[in-house]
Amino acid sequence: MTPTNRRFSEPDEKLARKLFDHFRRETRDVEGVSRPAYSDMETSSLKYLEEFAEGRGLHVEYDAAENAVFSLREDAKATQFVLIGSHIDSVPQGGNFDGLAGILAGLLCLLKAKETGVRFKRPVKVIALRGEESAWFGPCYIGSKALLGRLNAEELNARHKGDKRTLAEHMHDMGIVLEPIEQGEPLLSPSSVLEYLELHIEQGPLLIEKKLPAGIVTGIRGNFRHRNIRCIGEAGHSGAVPRAYRHDPVFALADLLTRLDDSWLTLLQKGNDLVLTSGIVGTDPERHAMTRIPDEVSFSLDVRSQSKAVLQGMREMLAQEMTTIEEDRGVRFVLDDEHCVEPALCDSRIVAGLSSAMGDLGYDPFQMASGAGHDAAVFANAGISTGMVFVRNRNGSHNPLEAMEISDFMVGTEIFYSYLMEN
Amino acid sequence: MTPTNRRFSEPDEKLARKLFDHFRRETRDVEGVSRPAYSDMETSSLKYLEEFAEGRGLHVEYDAAENAVFSLREDAKATQFVLIGSHIDSVPQGGNFDGLAGILAGLLCLLKAKETGVRFKRPVKVIALRGEESAWFGPCYIGSKALLGRLNAEELNARHKGDKRTLAEHMHDMGIVLEPIEQGEPLLSPSSVLEYLELHIEQGPLLIEKKLPAGIVTGIRGNFRHRNIRCIGEAGHSGAVPRAYRHDPVFALADLLTRLDDSWLTLLQKGNDLVLTSGIVGTDPERHAMTRIPDEVSFSLDVRSQSKAVLQGMREMLAQEMTTIEEDRGVRFVLDDEHCVEPALCDSRIVAGLSSAMGDLGYDPFQMASGAGHDAAVFANAGISTGMVFVRNRNGSHNPLEAMEISDFMVGTEIFYSYLMEN
Repeated sequence: MTPTNRRFSEPDEKLARKLFDHFRRETRDVEGVSRPAYSDMETSSLKYLEEFAEGRGLHVEYDAAENAVFSLREDAKATQFVLIGSHIDSVPQGGNFDGLAGILAGLLCLLKAKETGVRFKRPVKVIALRGEESAWFGPCYIGSKALLGRLNAEELNARHKGDKRTLAEHMHDMGIVLEPIEQGEPLLSPSSVLEYLELHIEQGPLLIEKKLPAGIVTGIRGNFRHRNIRCIGEAGHSGAVPRAYRHDPVFALADLLTRLDDSWLTLLQKGNDLVLTSGIVGTDPERHAMTRIPDEVSFSLDVRSQSKAVLQGMREMLAQEMTTIEEDRGVRFVLDDEHCVEPALCDSRIVAGLSSAMGDLGYDPFQMASGAGHDAAVFANAGISTGMVFVRNRNGSHNPLEAMEISDFMVGTEIFYSYLMEN
Repeated sequence: MTPTNRRFSEPDEKLARKLFDHFRRETRDVEGVSRPAYSDMETSSLKYLEEFAEGRGLHVEYDAAENAVFSLREDAKATQFVLIGSHIDSVPQGGNFDGLAGILAGLLCLLKAKETGVRFKRPVKVIALRGEESAWFGPCYIGSKALLGRLNAEELNARHKGDKRTLAEHMHDMGIVLEPIEQGEPLLSPSSVLEYLELHIEQGPLLIEKKLPAGIVTGIRGNFRHRNIRCIGEAGHSGAVPRAYRHDPVFALADLLTRLDDSWLTLLQKGNDLVLTSGIVGTDPERHAMTRIPDEVSFSLDVRSQSKAVLQGMREMLAQEMTTIEEDRGVRFVLDDEHCVEPALCDSRIVAGLSSAMGDLGYDPFQMASGAGHDAAVFANAGISTGMVFVRNRNGSHNPLEAMEISDFMVGTEIFYSYLMEN
């Protein structure tokens, strides 16, 4: 398929490649890249973009949380604008594309507008956010939360996994004034942001399976999670206790997961959005044995959906199935605290606009949920109309093997550019 | 219920209590008792029984494997006899009843016959076997295997878990001539043993649930086992991979166990004997995470039945269900070597005789499978007609909390005595 209506061409793709290569080289680690949140490496990465953008005639400034903001010079003073953004930091020894791709997509749009003299329908700013990854301090979306007055005291007191100093100390050291952040004051007025747009690599396999370079995100899945649920039964000799007298927690867990799996399938068949994972499962190595009915098994549960109602339904279903199994099998489920994150829906008008732009490029405008969280969720949950484009990527993210094709990235960038010209 | 036809009375129960108490005191450990296989403690335990039995006018000798053999003096030279036995050793910090109860039951029968002058229908010998527990060297049923020419080179070379010296060295040290054992020669001609009878505490909860002091064993379950089966899937982001693209080994394992559980129930409903345990289950602590679809889970499987056909059916069913799940879910099961033990059926005539004896005592002659293995299985598999009586016991075995009531033990002993007088 040769996409039609292309505004970007070979030199743009070459420039993109050059920029990605710079960061792959300059922020490399033993494996992959490391761009720690609120570090000198993060600052020098922004500095490089600043010099690059200024060299190409763009306006660059830093906001009160030391995120870098880029725009056409004539849009520098705009009080209302579309904001394109993503994050500059990476996980330790991560891939080069997670975060960076979204910033470069925005910059390429600005440069194309500058080069052609054609103007966006509305002013556009591009933001390179700091500290999205939770790997460094624990909290995630730090840059966007700080900007929108949503970084709480616990997060500010979180300690860096390496030097053990707090996030607040790290922010202070780079000249960020903490008082308004501590008081939950937005550093950026939500009403100034007409829309927030983010391009990101897909962290799952869907676009590869669908053979599409990009997809339009309909929302970011919320979740509820339990890190450690215990199913407690009764130990016994594996040979000497008949089935009717067993209280086997492993068979109880198998029963529970199979029931959840059945409901999952039914919900999908009805058109609902849902994913379900039990990533950690184990009997106790101190006590378990091949010939002993275990007295306990513990497991984690991560339930995600774009729909608050589906999450609530699953929460109730989980409780109900556990009760049934407790009665059937004489076991007991002991739940730790639930952690939950609200789903963030993308704006339907933006989804339609981005889909239309993708269609104009000659691609089937495939719509999909985002399973992972993004800065976009912080903007959406602050009441800002939000849209996202995913770019096809092999091997997931948060690892050095991330594999986005630059040609696919250009399709994603083109979708944004085309959308901004029409809307 | 007041059982009728009782031959044992208060003084016998008092004697039993005194003997058990001796061993509880003299072989005590930090917790429970420890009577290591082929140790001085084991030897001195046999020595105590020797002196006790000789003091009461019984004949005592040691066989070529240094097991102690007791009989009425007039039966000492009998070339064919009924053999009552069990083992004198215990697991480390185990209970006092596992093994010892079977020896004392036999001795009480001999003493009762001596005391009353009433004679058994056939000569009776009682054997106190060494080294039944696998906890010390690895191999189990050492005393009975040595006796029947079934102790192999690998077992003889197994090293003691404490001093790391081989079983052969330990046996040699106590004066056992190893050559015939190494050559697989029976030290006891199977044709001299008319029947082998063993009383043992139940290691499950069935007799407690049935409110019966004893039960008649119909056979010793055989088993097939896998210590470590791996189910290999594909890792992924817990939020970003839709159900249809997952290869989740934990859900695959849940599916497998649920299918096995369903078949188990069906087989029981059809009157088959089966127990099924997955005692060890776990994702890899080095790699697992709450937000990561695991790429692998490993688990053990222990399948037991009295019926060779049921075991073979389950083995085939397991392979079939694994194949189905591999196809359904895109995972792969990797099996380690299977270990298997043949079931040992009790002799139906002996089962009927013991049941009749139990009925005569005024109890419902409940018949049950033995889930755990016993010396009796070695005798049965050597072609000797075998029977077992289980005595009610709380808290399982191989732990200091074993709790057999002496009054229940007397019922089991009475069943043997009554059987031997009638058969």
